[in-house]
Amino acid sequence: MKLFHADIIAVGSELLLGGRVDSNSVFVAHLLAECGIEVRKKISVGDQKDDIQEALRGSLKRAHVIVLTGGLGSTLDDCTREAVAETLRCPLIKRKRAYENLKACYRRFGRPVTPILAKQAFLPSGATMLANTEGTASGFLMRQGQTVIVVLPGVPREAKVMMIDQVQPKLRKMFKSKRHYWLHTFHTFGLPETEVQKQLSPVLRDDGPIQFGLLASPRGVTVTVSCWMFSDSQSFVKERSPFFPEWADLVRQVRECIGPWLFAEGERTMEEIVGEVLRGLSWTVAVAESCTGGLVAHRLTGVPGSSLYVDRGVVSYSNEAKQEFVGVPALTLRRYGAVSSQVALAMAKGIRMRSRVNVGVGVTGIAGPGGGTLNKPVGLVYGAIDGPQGPRWYRWQFHGDRADITLKTSQAVLDLIRRYANEAQF
Amino acid sequence: MKLFHADIIAVGSELLLGGRVDSNSVFVAHLLAECGIEVRKKISVGDQKDDIQEALRGSLKRAHVIVLTGGLGSTLDDCTREAVAETLRCPLIKRKRAYENLKACYRRFGRPVTPILAKQAFLPSGATMLANTEGTASGFLMRQGQTVIVVLPGVPREAKVMMIDQVQPKLRKMFKSKRHYWLHTFHTFGLPETEVQKQLSPVLRDDGPIQFGLLASPRGVTVTVSCWMFSDSQSFVKERSPFFPEWADLVRQVRECIGPWLFAEGERTMEEIVGEVLRGLSWTVAVAESCTGGLVAHRLTGVPGSSLYVDRGVVSYSNEAKQEFVGVPALTLRRYGAVSSQVALAMAKGIRMRSRVNVGVGVTGIAGPGGGTLNKPVGLVYGAIDGPQGPRWYRWQFHGDRADITLKTSQAVLDLIRRYANEAQF
Repeated sequence: MKLFHADIIAVGSELLLGGRVDSNSVFVAHLLAECGIEVRKKISVGDQKDDIQEALRGSLKRAHVIVLTGGLGSTLDDCTREAVAETLRCPLIKRKRAYENLKACYRRFGRPVTPILAKQAFLPSGATMLANTEGTASGFLMRQGQTVIVVLPGVPREAKVMMIDQVQPKLRKMFKSKRHYWLHTFHTFGLPETEVQKQLSPVLRDDGPIQFGLLASPRGVTVTVSCWMFSDSQSFVKERSPFFPEWADLVRQVRECIGPWLFAEGERTMEEIVGEVLRGLSWTVAVAESCTGGLVAHRLTGVPGSSLYVDRGVVSYSNEAKQEFVGVPALTLRRYGAVSSQVALAMAKGIRMRSRVNVGVGVTGIAGPGGGTLNKPVGLVYGAIDGPQGPRWYRWQFHGDRADITLKTSQAVLDLIRRYANEAQF
Repeated sequence: MKLFHADIIAVGSELLLGGRVDSNSVFVAHLLAECGIEVRKKISVGDQKDDIQEALRGSLKRAHVIVLTGGLGSTLDDCTREAVAETLRCPLIKRKRAYENLKACYRRFGRPVTPILAKQAFLPSGATMLANTEGTASGFLMRQGQTVIVVLPGVPREAKVMMIDQVQPKLRKMFKSKRHYWLHTFHTFGLPETEVQKQLSPVLRDDGPIQFGLLASPRGVTVTVSCWMFSDSQSFVKERSPFFPEWADLVRQVRECIGPWLFAEGERTMEEIVGEVLRGLSWTVAVAESCTGGLVAHRLTGVPGSSLYVDRGVVSYSNEAKQEFVGVPALTLRRYGAVSSQVALAMAKGIRMRSRVNVGVGVTGIAGPGGGTLNKPVGLVYGAIDGPQGPRWYRWQFHGDRADITLKTSQAVLDLIRRYANEAQF
């Protein structure tokens, strides 16, 4: 069985020093994987023709498919089509259909097709034109020996539509790859990367086709399980289970290994899961935040439909706000300090009572970089929750800069709500 | 004069199919440019040793500097150090200093250094160790012929500090590049990209060494002006003006072209600028948010030291919250609806009075995707401010998904505070 590999070459000087990253390659790689073609290398080069050609020559040595994106426009620095034509020694020829599309496009903008703009209708001789239904520059596809070269515009929407409507069907027909890509993502919170790995040890294998990936971020550790599998059956691709029961088993095993630290799978986020659990219980929630400054409320309300269960939030940054808006007693603040379990609890209880919601949440801590002391260092956070099962409080010590600490805190607080609500369900 | 070129190789299978993009290369490219070294190619490869080696061999043929990031950790798939050691034929040797750092690091986490973790203290023989002050895995730097190879951990914070503190001084000394990179960034808000381009038309040139770049995002349109110039003078590098007065002139011209839409330059963010203006006036602020759900407060409090001027915030998602916490009259809500200039104004005035701050801000709108009507479509937002110069209100119509609309709204509200406070200054 044959393995097919692809390289993606993104063209544009703004990708090198302009602060922009090549995000087109994310969907291009997935759309290639759907055709059984695995991306092995992504390359970004500037608008210099030499650099594009050098990258292209390198990829021609080993890739079955090369996808180039960007540099097809009409400005002076766009030269991808010239670079490809010269490398493959095919002269550029004006294509009637491409030119008609160009004219129709500019007619809509009320502009004539000047000679400079007409550049976009030139394709290397022998290339198959890829019509641009969303914009001006036509793409193209051509063969060189065993390699298929696909050239797409840099505008994400244009490239995506071209890839799905025209390139995928062609690649499927050309390669007839029997290889299929499987991917499952697990999102965990509360364990460091090495501990997650330990949890997974019963299923982790270094051999075989299954790939495990661990990725740590302030939102937690994400586990991806992926594999490339051969199969002749077409129903395999569609149903994704009957011919590969081991995959379903594996997903189940991973889920069990991670246990209570697993909060979501696939594309789901923590705030979506929290919303789902709250909606399931018909619970409402209100949040009193100090160090997170509104991030918990913002994430909760970032979910469409969250107005059903989010009642309100208070960012009680000053001590006055904690007293007036949340009802934290002045004595508690004086005796224990603003960053204490007592204040976190008073915030949770106060916001719950004042908002008449099912669950009240309080969080107070030191986000840094200033404000830390020996007893209360930067990153110390107290979180509390009050609801039908009574009050709870937690103490965390987070590390990182201000943005890290607030993001980790918001994730911990949301996870707290999730676990508290889950308990009530069972 | 010699031109020095660099390639950046980012290692990690998650960069190929995991949906993650290589963002480290953005700051690595800039820090290299500061040393007069221009990035010509960025490459992402997976965790396969063969692929890392193939990329490394390719870059060794032409780059003066190769920076590899990622794959230095302790998990099974981390193999960058092995790939580099094998390519350069230098055995991996345990380094005492790296091991001590590792031990100290894990001691803080209360964990012993197991043999698997100890991997992170092994470096190729002959390599210069790059101490990791922020995490566990040491980086390293080594020469191969005319090429300098720099290997950094994948964690952005660790890589950045290592790059600035240790790699930059070494590269400056090694290459003594006479080429200098000039970059100036202008952040605008309130104009679409094409309008910003129109504003810039007096200074836009297509020839010459100056490069212009426009980048649109929900935070506004960013204009970058950059160029590479040769200079022998050291003071040129430090003072950035006497030997290139045209640059200072150009920056001034661009600034004038953009006019009142310019809110920040360089690395500054809108929230930092707002904080600066408020501190300058010794003003305090309180925010009542509906559709942004806490994002305005979170962005304001994301600035270190913001507790000096942020008093509190209220996320009044429900109508009850708007009445109880901000004092919006029930009649106003009934008569005009929650999304109205009247309610935005009442929120601004209410939060200002109740918090006894200088400036009160209110924002209410429809973030979508649901909740829109013919008269009040998704993306309709009212913002209001009340302060020493009296009340003001604004109406915006934003486009995009929920996250776009809330981010644009937060930016518009912060810009509103900035402009209001600026007025008071003059």
